[in-house]
Formats: sequence, C-alpha cells, structure tokens
Amino acid sequence: MEIQTEISAMGERAVTASRVLASLSARRKNVILQAMADELDARGADIKAANEEDMQNARQSGLSEAMLDRLKISDSRLAAMIKGVRDIAGQKDPVGSVISRWIRPNGLEILKIRVPIGVIGIIYESRPNVTVDSSALCFKSSNAVILRGGREAAQSNAALVAAMQAGGARKGMPADAVQLVSTTDRAAIQALVQLEGRVDLIIPRGGEGLIRTVMEHARVPVIKHYRGVCHVYIDADADANMALAIVENAKCQRPGVCNAIEKLLVHETIAPQILPVIAARLRELNVELRGDDAARAIVPDILPATESDWTEEYLDMILTIGIVKSDDAAIDHINRYGSHHSDAIVSNNTVANKKFCVAVDSAAVYVNASTRFTDGGEFGMGAEIGISTDKIHARGPMGVEELTTYKYVVRGKGQVRD
Amino acid sequence: MEIQTEISAMGERAVTASRVLASLSARRKNVILQAMADELDARGADIKAANEEDMQNARQSGLSEAMLDRLKISDSRLAAMIKGVRDIAGQKDPVGSVISRWIRPNGLEILKIRVPIGVIGIIYESRPNVTVDSSALCFKSSNAVILRGGREAAQSNAALVAAMQAGGARKGMPADAVQLVSTTDRAAIQALVQLEGRVDLIIPRGGEGLIRTVMEHARVPVIKHYRGVCHVYIDADADANMALAIVENAKCQRPGVCNAIEKLLVHETIAPQILPVIAARLRELNVELRGDDAARAIVPDILPATESDWTEEYLDMILTIGIVKSDDAAIDHINRYGSHHSDAIVSNNTVANKKFCVAVDSAAVYVNASTRFTDGGEFGMGAEIGISTDKIHARGPMGVEELTTYKYVVRGKGQVRD
Repeated sequence: MEIQTEISAMGERAVTASRVLASLSARRKNVILQAMADELDARGADIKAANEEDMQNARQSGLSEAMLDRLKISDSRLAAMIKGVRDIAGQKDPVGSVISRWIRPNGLEILKIRVPIGVIGIIYESRPNVTVDSSALCFKSSNAVILRGGREAAQSNAALVAAMQAGGARKGMPADAVQLVSTTDRAAIQALVQLEGRVDLIIPRGGEGLIRTVMEHARVPVIKHYRGVCHVYIDADADANMALAIVENAKCQRPGVCNAIEKLLVHETIAPQILPVIAARLRELNVELRGDDAARAIVPDILPATESDWTEEYLDMILTIGIVKSDDAAIDHINRYGSHHSDAIVSNNTVANKKFCVAVDSAAVYVNASTRFTDGGEFGMGAEIGISTDKIHARGPMGVEELTTYKYVVRGKGQVRD
Repeated sequence: MEIQTEISAMGERAVTASRVLASLSARRKNVILQAMADELDARGADIKAANEEDMQNARQSGLSEAMLDRLKISDSRLAAMIKGVRDIAGQKDPVGSVISRWIRPNGLEILKIRVPIGVIGIIYESRPNVTVDSSALCFKSSNAVILRGGREAAQSNAALVAAMQAGGARKGMPADAVQLVSTTDRAAIQALVQLEGRVDLIIPRGGEGLIRTVMEHARVPVIKHYRGVCHVYIDADADANMALAIVENAKCQRPGVCNAIEKLLVHETIAPQILPVIAARLRELNVELRGDDAARAIVPDILPATESDWTEEYLDMILTIGIVKSDDAAIDHINRYGSHHSDAIVSNNTVANKKFCVAVDSAAVYVNASTRFTDGGEFGMGAEIGISTDKIHARGPMGVEELTTYKYVVRGKGQVRD
C-alpha cells in the first residue's frame, strides 16, 4: 500500500511536470539537455563510484560475467552516454509541428499537430545507459518520464538521475520531468502500470519475465520491445556470394542483439549448392547449426532441430536452418514462427521480392540486406528508445518522433453544427 | 474453457484471413464492399425480422425506451447502413501507400509503408449499425475483424453479418474476414482480449462497465472510445452572441453524444454580463443548470454543483457551470476534470487562444467553434469507427487510415553492417 501511494504521487507530479513540458520551447529544451550532459560529465567520479558499489553487490550476489559487463559504467561508456544526450539536443524537435492542415467547406480550419504523449514509464533491467538515453529522449519530446530500473543498477541509476536533474534544474527543467522509482520492490512495477489517467504509456525493455509481469498487470497502454526472432530467406534466384555475406553478417556481427538472425530458410532448389558453403563458413566462425531433415540431408553434421528451435531467440552463436519448397512456404513460416521484428529475403527475382515485402508481417522487411540495420541510428532517425515489436502506434525503431502523438486544433469563426 | 477454445479458433482463422486481406487490391476490396451492400439490401426483410425478434425479447426483459430505440433497425436506418458501406467503398484506400522514403549514405533505400494492423476485435453494445460500419471499415483497411456485439442485438447482428459474408464471398472475400462471436457469454470478452499473438487491437465501444471489463482483462492493445466530458470556456474577450450560439449548439443540438458539452466555464470578468443571457436561453430549452457558488451568485436559481458534477458525463440536458479567475485556471480545470475529448475556447484574444490550444490536453481543441464537430464525417475523413480518447496510435475520430499501421521496407544491394 505504501508503494502504491508513493508511485501514485510520482504519477501526479509527473502529470504536473508534463503540463509545463508541453509549452517549453525547443531552444530551452536543448539548453537543458546540454546542461544535463555537462553535469553528467562533471559528476563522472561520483557516477563511477556509485557504479562500483553496484558492481560489488552484483559480484557478491553471483551475477554472471555477461550481466556484470552490462552493468559496468566505464569511462568510454559514460562518454558515450554524454555524447548521446548532446546528439539528442542537436536533433529536430518534433513537438508542435503541423502534420497536416485542411479547411472544411464550412470554413473550419483543422490542424493536426504533433504533441507529447504526456507521462511515459520506462521499465528496464540492468544497463544504466537506458537511464540516460530514455530521460534525454523523453525530455526532448516533452514527455515526463518515470524510470524504474533494475535492482542491480540502483546506485548507478540514482547517481545518473541526480546529475541530470541537477544539471537540468539550473537551466529551468521542471522538477519532476525525470523521476526515478527508488524502491526496487517488484510491487512498484505493478503500481506503475496501473496508474490510469496519470501514466499514458509504458515501455518495458527487458527479458521475457519482465514483459510477462508488465502485460499481466497493465491497465495503461504498453509498447513492447520484445523478442527478435529474425530470419534470412535465400530464394531460388539468390546471388550466392551476397547470401553468404548477409547470413554471416546478420548472424555473427553481434549475435546478442535483437536484430541478429536466429533462423535461416533456404529454397530447396538452391540449397544443395549454397548450404554447404554457408555451413562451412559458419562452422569456421563457431556457429552451432541446427536444422530440419532436409537441411541435414545436405549437410549431415547439422544437429537435428526440435519444434522449439523455430521460435527460440538464442541471442547466441546458434542458427537453425530450414529448407522450404516455395516463397509462400518461407513467408508462412516467418509469419508463424517469427516475432515480427526484422526479416530478409535474398533474391534477384523482383516478383518474389515484392511478394515477400507485402506478405511478411514484420516491422522491417529487407531485400538483399542484413537485418542488422534495424536501428534508429542506421535508419537515420537518431537515438532510439528501443525497437517496437508491437503494431500499434509505433513499429520498429522508436526515436523522438515516435514518442509523440497528435491533437487536432480546430479554428472557427463561430461555426455550430446543423 | 469451451468458450476460450472457440474464441481462440476464431482468432486463428482471423489471422489466416488477414494474410489474404493484406494482398487484396483496392479495386477488389471495393467490389466486395459493393456486394456486401447489395446483399444487405436484398436481405432487408430477413434483417428486419431478426431485429423484430431482438426487439420483442428486449421489450420482455424490460429494456428502456432509449435502449429499444438504439436497437431498432428501421427502413431508414438500414438504408443508412447500406449507404455507409457504399461510401466506404468510394473512399481512398490507405493500404500500401508510401508514408515516406529516404536513402541512407550506404545506399539502403528505406520506405515507410502503410499496412493493415491485422486482426481487430470490436466489443460493443446494442446499436446494430456498429456491426456494419465496423465490418466495412476494417475490411476496407484490410484488417480481419472479430465482432462481439451485445446480447440484445444477437439476432440482428447475426443477420447483418450473414448478409455481408454471403455478399462478400460471391466476389472473393476471404471466409473469415468478418466473424461474429455467437455466444453472448461475458467470458467471450475475456477470452478475446487475451488472444496475444492473434488479436492485434481491441476497440471497445460502450459504457463504463464494458470498458472496465475490457481493461481489467486485456493482454492485447486497446484503443478506448470512452467518455466525452467536454467543455466550452468563455474567455474575458469573447463575443457574447458567438458564445451563446456555441454553448447552445454544443449542449442542445444532440445532448446524448460524446462530443456534446457537459460543462461551461466562464471568465469572472465577463460572467455577470453573459451568464444571465445564456442561463435564460438554456432554461427555455429545458436544460437543467448546476453551478459553483460564483455562478449561483450571478444566476441564483442555478442548482448547487457537487464535486462529482465536474467529472460526470450526463449525456442529457444538464450543464454544470463554473466561474474561473483566469485562462490558466480554465485550462487546469479542463485538464484535471475533463476526459481529454473535445474542448473549446470562445475568445477574440489570440494570446489566450494560442495558450489554450497548446495547453489543453485533448484530442480536439476548438477556437470559436462548437465541440460537436469532432466526428469523422465533419472532419472530412469519411466514416469513423469511433472517437479515440486514448493518446497512443490514434486520437479523436478514427477512420480507415487510423485502422492502419506501418512497416519499413528496406531495399539493398547486399549491404551488411560494419
């Protein structure tokens, strides 16, 4: 009950801050962002000391090396966070831009105008850079943000938020524009996702358990940044060298991220020619290969795939390979087993490419390119708050513009309805 | 459990239909829509007979006259439904249109393309026209729809859907593009709103109880079409005649709809002059007036308002009146007590008007016009599936375009990420 009261009060304060944020000029916001970056810089030693506390606690509680690495704020990572804030200051401000404008026969002028969403709750796990990125992106888009980071990063997050608040406040940032939930009790998540009328949107970023918890309790809208079960499909008319380069890049360049591929589908007519070459190259790079019977008939030392292999997000050097009889079979497979994130076709057949682009129901569909490009920076959108795997409001990389909504402003001269 | 299985199977069939719908041409869809309209016309007698059954059951179970009126399918109402379907056939098809396109320095071409959402669940109450409007709008936007209407309209809805399915099928409509949940058990709602991975969006249209049920159980995204607690604010610099005409229209022209006003705020400097005139006119039209102490000091026979009067959606000839000391006080009041639907300022002061438009956090903000214009038709968008009071994805009137989302199509020549 105490936690509910605390979170509810934070929501109320965020709403108040969001009213002020809605009227801040682009110039003022950018000055504040630079001041946030300056203060993160000035407090570097404090931030790293706080992070060292988190690291020690995490080591004592036996966190894995991979998790410890995620938690660590090195000099270069802190510098990247600070640069990220300055980059966001330099981006175009979407708030107040006129999306469209028209005049009705009765003389009413209707303007569709981009406005902030209001109050956004970000629920995330160990990476402390999410604290800084999310705060800067939400602030740039004039949204108040309530951050709920993971327990392991509690001291780091507190130090980062304190720095941003202090720096921002000096240049006129509303007091509660950026708030951090101080308790790491899980009840705080439940309270936050049920704050109807105060929180306008929840963005959860984390593992399956976190997403489940959020979805089970949510009463406010959620945009999920969920699994990436991405595919490359090699069509019958593919260029073999291009296919090899794309598969290698999409699987191996950074296997632990959501836009890396987990599955490879190959058309049966090209498979005997191309699969042995790809398998040999991936084995050289230490990728574990699993596959269906048809794939194993071509490359015998591919391990047999189980049903769950087709849906699993490994985030690791593992690839499951299937042979398909047609483009339609590949499309059906991707729509059925994939996570609607990023999927690619490699083909020189324009009919197949067009069909793939229309029929594959994913946020990003690629023709002859690696899925690894699904990213705000690579798309030219600037920093991103994540990659939406939902279909409502925003799909794929979410930048500053995707953190806005719109309102209609209708100007009249006394018009009434007949 | 049986209901869950049934709803789950409907969801699976809807997903299959949605894959076919995504590739239907605009021309084919319009031919199908005309065939749906033809068959609704041809089956007029059956539809009215089915409706008569519903009416008799409703009378026996003591439904109010207002509810009976909503349920009734008269000749003119059926004709309006049919015309609605034909109008939707004539509208522009949003699917496949290129929202934006750009080329990255590495040569990747990125297209942001409008696509259907997928499977949409509509949960609604007694009005049978929602069955026809929703089906036609979802079909036009290439979405599969699962309809869950109210118990009172069960026979009417079944007859309407059967007609649309039969007419559409003759011209190639996928079998499960439009499905109606046949059970009226409330468990069907719960099952439908939890169909993650099958239902992409739920749009509930109905009273507070229905919305609560949906929100409590939902695991899939929901866009609410909720309350309209709309305001007119008369600023100090208002034209008195314009203010009177707008208040009269917004309150009385059709008091039972969501874009009618429920509250009137008046600046204290103009209230002594304008409020007696407005009160006299509204009393003539049989509007019950309630108000705060300041309003009652000016017009003594205004009834005292209670706290709940400021948030209540009467949908009736009742208006609650408050006197405010400033534009800021009016804005704060509207943001705090309103439902973020439609709110108007009447003023000749451009500074006040601008501030009102920026600061009032509503889907539609009016300057010198009646709130009654918040409507797909009045906005020039064509037919609407309703008016969103949510802030995510779509706000205000939702037409065909608002029933779409987007995907990125990325075309390369073998690009991989460094």
